Amino acid sequence: MLDRRRIGAAALRVVDEQGTLTIPALARALGVAPSALYHHVSGRDEIISLMREELTGATGGADQDWSKPWDQALEAWARSYLAAFAAHPGAVPLLAVAPLAEPFMHAMYEKVAELLLSAGFAEAQVMPLVNALESFILGSALDMVSPPVMVSDVTRETAPHLSAVLDQTPTDHTRAEHSFTLGLRAMLTGFGHLLPDN
Amino acid sequence: MLDRRRIGAAALRVVDEQGTLTIPALARALGVAPSALYHHVSGRDEIISLMREELTGATGGADQDWSKPWDQALEAWARSYLAAFAAHPGAVPLLAVAPLAEPFMHAMYEKVAELLLSAGFAEAQVMPLVNALESFILGSALDMVSPPVMVSDVTRETAPHLSAVLDQTPTDHTRAEHSFTLGLRAMLTGFGHLLPDN
Repeated sequence: MLDRRRIGAAALRVVDEQGTLTIPALARALGVAPSALYHHVSGRDEIISLMREELTGATGGADQDWSKPWDQALEAWARSYLAAFAAHPGAVPLLAVAPLAEPFMHAMYEKVAELLLSAGFAEAQVMPLVNALESFILGSALDMVSPPVMVSDVTRETAPHLSAVLDQTPTDHTRAEHSFTLGLRAMLTGFGHLLPDN
Repeated sequence: MLDRRRIGAAALRVVDEQGTLTIPALARALGVAPSALYHHVSGRDEIISLMREELTGATGGADQDWSKPWDQALEAWARSYLAAFAAHPGAVPLLAVAPLAEPFMHAMYEKVAELLLSAGFAEAQVMPLVNALESFILGSALDMVSPPVMVSDVTRETAPHLSAVLDQTPTDHTRAEHSFTLGLRAMLTGFGHLLPDN
């Protein structure tokens, strides 16, 4: 039986496999005629919304502990967000540019906004901080599915500094994880410097 | 006449318009048979390489001033990198995961590695820092092509904090630019804290 949950999950699989989402491809993946899909969704925008619901629900963003210090709470949020998108990298370009009109997304942003305002950030700083953090997370999700060795075939004679730093860089999946941790901590340190008591 | 430059430029147009790159679609865009393409390139990997050459060349990364203080030089590099990808957001998911084996890319990373080592960063820190910065840039390129108002239809009663911060958030293209600037500065501030004299 077709239901909205199954449609969202199948749409995630389609973008992971094909890089794009089309109604005919989604209908094929579900084994139904395109017209059958329209009994459940009004169109592409609603399908993207279902994909987002499936992704967000999967990471349990709702039951996160927002009572921790702002930087710890934000780090935990960022990590669950990354895990969700790293599992469905094909959805990154699609969801990155689709407006967030869903009440369940608003509920999540309400928590983040309250967290950052309570920490002392100015109202005008909050959304730019959240946007910047999200951009970093989405880019990192793509990095997570990149080859462990991204810079390859370097010649020591022509690129001695690059060779030296690559010798000290992991050549397995920890490369991307380590980059994410380092970048996240750096960004949170920088955010902290924007607070009035710094 | 088909040449490698034209193939790279056409491939960028195809991913921008269609979200994915296939050899038949590229051949159609160039008005040639797929077999004609193979006289110039060995396959998909080489086409991706040509796209990267076209992107990188366009931003004049080669003639950047690397003699400035590390954070200013890195900021300038990040901005030209962002401009290139924001002009071709469809290329982001493709290029983000394709290994960098091209000598012109190695030459660029050699400059960045030399810059950061001279600034005092440890060999093991350099590539993670560069990776993290690139993830932020690629995510920001997607944000640049997002709608100006990303969080919409918020209800003040159910999301008062979110409503308050959105009231202070630009509703035009400056939203994404401002987020990028703030995130970039935060990240560079955080990087600076990793230096031994901090």
